[in-house]
Amino acid sequence: MLLRLCRTLVVGFPRAVRVKPTPSRLCIPACSTNDSFKPQHPSLTCPDENSRTRGWKVVGALLGLGAALAYHDHRCRAAQESPRVFTREEVRSHNSLETGVWVTLGSEVFDVTKFVDLHPGGPSKLMLAAGGPIEPFWALYASHNQPHVRELLAEYKIGELNPEDKVSPTLEASDPYADDPSRHPALRINSQRPFNAEPPPELLTENYITPNPIFFTRNHLPVPNVDPDTYRLHIVGAPGGQSLSLSLDDLYKFPKHEVTVTLQCAGNRRAEMNKVKAVKGLEWRTGAISTARWAGARLCDVLAQAGHRPRETEAHVCFEGLDSDPTGTAYGASIPLARALDPEAEVLLAYEMNGQPLPRDHGFPVRVVVPGVVGARQVKWLGRVSVESEESHSHWQRRDYKGFSPSVDWDTVDFDQAPAIQELPVQSAITEPQDGATVESGEVTIKGYAWSGGGRAVIRVDVSIDGGLTWQEAQLEGEEQCPRKAWAWRIWHLTAQVPAEQKELEVVCKAVDDSYNVQPDTVAPIWNLRGVLSNAWHRVRVHVVP
Amino acid sequence: MLLRLCRTLVVGFPRAVRVKPTPSRLCIPACSTNDSFKPQHPSLTCPDENSRTRGWKVVGALLGLGAALAYHDHRCRAAQESPRVFTREEVRSHNSLETGVWVTLGSEVFDVTKFVDLHPGGPSKLMLAAGGPIEPFWALYASHNQPHVRELLAEYKIGELNPEDKVSPTLEASDPYADDPSRHPALRINSQRPFNAEPPPELLTENYITPNPIFFTRNHLPVPNVDPDTYRLHIVGAPGGQSLSLSLDDLYKFPKHEVTVTLQCAGNRRAEMNKVKAVKGLEWRTGAISTARWAGARLCDVLAQAGHRPRETEAHVCFEGLDSDPTGTAYGASIPLARALDPEAEVLLAYEMNGQPLPRDHGFPVRVVVPGVVGARQVKWLGRVSVESEESHSHWQRRDYKGFSPSVDWDTVDFDQAPAIQELPVQSAITEPQDGATVESGEVTIKGYAWSGGGRAVIRVDVSIDGGLTWQEAQLEGEEQCPRKAWAWRIWHLTAQVPAEQKELEVVCKAVDDSYNVQPDTVAPIWNLRGVLSNAWHRVRVHVVP
Repeated sequence: MLLRLCRTLVVGFPRAVRVKPTPSRLCIPACSTNDSFKPQHPSLTCPDENSRTRGWKVVGALLGLGAALAYHDHRCRAAQESPRVFTREEVRSHNSLETGVWVTLGSEVFDVTKFVDLHPGGPSKLMLAAGGPIEPFWALYASHNQPHVRELLAEYKIGELNPEDKVSPTLEASDPYADDPSRHPALRINSQRPFNAEPPPELLTENYITPNPIFFTRNHLPVPNVDPDTYRLHIVGAPGGQSLSLSLDDLYKFPKHEVTVTLQCAGNRRAEMNKVKAVKGLEWRTGAISTARWAGARLCDVLAQAGHRPRETEAHVCFEGLDSDPTGTAYGASIPLARALDPEAEVLLAYEMNGQPLPRDHGFPVRVVVPGVVGARQVKWLGRVSVESEESHSHWQRRDYKGFSPSVDWDTVDFDQAPAIQELPVQSAITEPQDGATVESGEVTIKGYAWSGGGRAVIRVDVSIDGGLTWQEAQLEGEEQCPRKAWAWRIWHLTAQVPAEQKELEVVCKAVDDSYNVQPDTVAPIWNLRGVLSNAWHRVRVHVVP
Repeated sequence: MLLRLCRTLVVGFPRAVRVKPTPSRLCIPACSTNDSFKPQHPSLTCPDENSRTRGWKVVGALLGLGAALAYHDHRCRAAQESPRVFTREEVRSHNSLETGVWVTLGSEVFDVTKFVDLHPGGPSKLMLAAGGPIEPFWALYASHNQPHVRELLAEYKIGELNPEDKVSPTLEASDPYADDPSRHPALRINSQRPFNAEPPPELLTENYITPNPIFFTRNHLPVPNVDPDTYRLHIVGAPGGQSLSLSLDDLYKFPKHEVTVTLQCAGNRRAEMNKVKAVKGLEWRTGAISTARWAGARLCDVLAQAGHRPRETEAHVCFEGLDSDPTGTAYGASIPLARALDPEAEVLLAYEMNGQPLPRDHGFPVRVVVPGVVGARQVKWLGRVSVESEESHSHWQRRDYKGFSPSVDWDTVDFDQAPAIQELPVQSAITEPQDGATVESGEVTIKGYAWSGGGRAVIRVDVSIDGGLTWQEAQLEGEEQCPRKAWAWRIWHLTAQVPAEQKELEVVCKAVDDSYNVQPDTVAPIWNLRGVLSNAWHRVRVHVVP
């Protein structure tokens, strides 16, 4: 796993580098003098200095050696400055190129404004950490844990954090969400209570496997705090069978099954539907989708032990979470028994995510993973499993997560008339460049993801830079998957030539799966009042500079 | 089966009736006199008479009783005429309202021009028989086999067929297609050699089960003439297993399995793709799709008897037909072994189609039926079955029946880069009204079919009469199907209000399946050089008369 992550990072670098002199080529010797230092924040520097540093930057961008020399000079001056003390609030307010870009590492504060354009991973990824601690991002990408990176950062030190400045606000005991876990600062929060957040596009497709801390989080209720020692999973037995009350250790005794699965929320890309006409739901952009390597017991093995066998008539496996609302109603959902009992469907009672115990936000200690199926059925903090002749009576099974015609509104909707979403349709989105971005003429690299439900493999991604008039095929990355069990996405990229005269590009992508289903051209004809199943061609507009 | 056919017909009548007085309400007594008769063909009638009969028609359309009286008068005159003799060629030339509409029954010739608008099944269905024998059509629709229908027809008799006029041209022994079977005259022929033909739209959705004689026919080679007594199906045994050479009687000994399956050619609706840019392939309109009740041995049972078991690595079941080209190369195709061995996939070695032995055009005596999969894999006149580690090496598996990006042309195509089509994407089309038709303002009834591959059920059909700006949900007819095994289409209809001021409608349909996959909006972005997988929204333009 780590090997693959690293390989991806290394492979990723050449594409992402914007300025030729990479850190390893700077070769700046450590500076031991204590030169005088002036922070480069605009409010603390005079206009003349500002324009001089801008000048350096341009020179640096044009001439690798020039940049190296300029930074050596800068670094030596920085180290000679006596440390100042800043509050977290002050740091937080320096989160843009206009205000200056500050970050912290431990108790140290750094002004990295002028390093933004030199960041080997690209400016946008560094900007994700602007105004806050750098540790959560370095934890994601192991390439930062090297002496030369720490040396490089040291050049930008401007002071220390106020030791009395608290990292987190105090918890309010009356808040049902007070006990929610802390989250990665890179997540784009769509709702704080319950917590719903997505990774930013530039991190989303950085790795085939999404790092746990930035895996999209879709909670419906407060996160339960489950004691793993007393945890029991209740499996209702079949008539004549034995009900089970399984501890974690009991669950570990079933054969451990591992599978790489992409999870997607039904509301992924709802923001685009909302632009057509207002819908009810969280404003997910393109990030309500992530991929992990899951491990756990196969649901079919556990159900078999409780005496469950295939039935002639349609039946359903109902799941109940340990998360509940103030009335005590738990989150619930169901899937068809036929899928649950099919070993090839690889439905898991998962207790590991990317080799770690499940994070609390993702269902610690046990969640359901149903490959190829909408996230809403993959119940977290799993408490109870039963086999019923009907679907779960949960609100989320019967009164939500269903698709309707564009003509249906809240006055006419009849939730009984549509089937609960299970398998999802074919999907793809562009993660680079982002909408509104500026790219240079010549070549543009376009990157994104593609996935389809039901184990159907993505076989092709077509990309257009002229709004859909002409198409080019993207390169598919990532693992080849078993036929009929393509549970995980494909990352894709394309390097396209930008015509010289072009001032704007409308970049579009569309995927094809192995049943040759395709994405619809436009959003309006698939609009639905809940804003689910938003899988029209993804479009971003970018400006071109010569 | 018959019961359902009849019910569909009876249910179909009220919608199809254009003029209120149905045949059973005419109640015209038989006329025994031998009145003088003048055929109503324009070339044989004076203008005055013509306008007078048009007048009757108008009166008849407005007043049921008026029509009854007019026809009684007409009938009595017809019966008094002495019979004339016509050649088949003369009859054939009377195939439009302009030339007059003649049909034959046995050796009798009828001019039914003025009955066209009174036909209970609608004028367009009667016009399918114009210029030829009526028997093949009456054979399709049992409602014609009633005394009052024959009486009604007798009124329109104008003469007899020349007894020396041959029905069919003599066969040419040198023509490899000389031994092809005779076909139903309603079929729209896309290619005579090999024979490829589709039912006309107005017959296609008349019944949930397509009558055998008009089931779409897709032949790649001449139709073999197989002797059922000497026929043997060769099943290559597994290593350590036993190869089988099965007679028809041997095949009958396997448990007989029945399943209703819609077959669709990958090229269905190619004509629409051809309008975007020329493609290679037969000009199928919306009719390369049909539904039958198939019966036969399950492939999984036969393979098991030959010692085949599921394999860890991907394997394929290869089929060879008894049809072959002049070099002796047989038609061939393959499907994944996993599908072939899955009892739930219901793959058949079929020997019955709608309760009859397979017609020669549909693979007599044995064909493969693979529910949810493209027609091209459902090999007819089956001769040989083997399990291989690779797909069939047949041209039709490897160099045809694959989808490509719109950017791929015949100079750049690499057939190895795309997977062979197996499951088909979601599809729907409008069969009534037809493109260019004229409808009356007020209400318009729209009818069509919808289907999806892989056993995915159609859950909704959206219909628009304004080109896709607003949508209404159609009523789905036909049988509810087992979850994950929705192998057959749904017929659908919608009665829509036509706004008073409207002069033209752009009628559009699009279907959604239970994985919530939808059809793409337009044809150009799914265009491909072979013109397969044409499943964009179906659009027809109709004129509105006040």
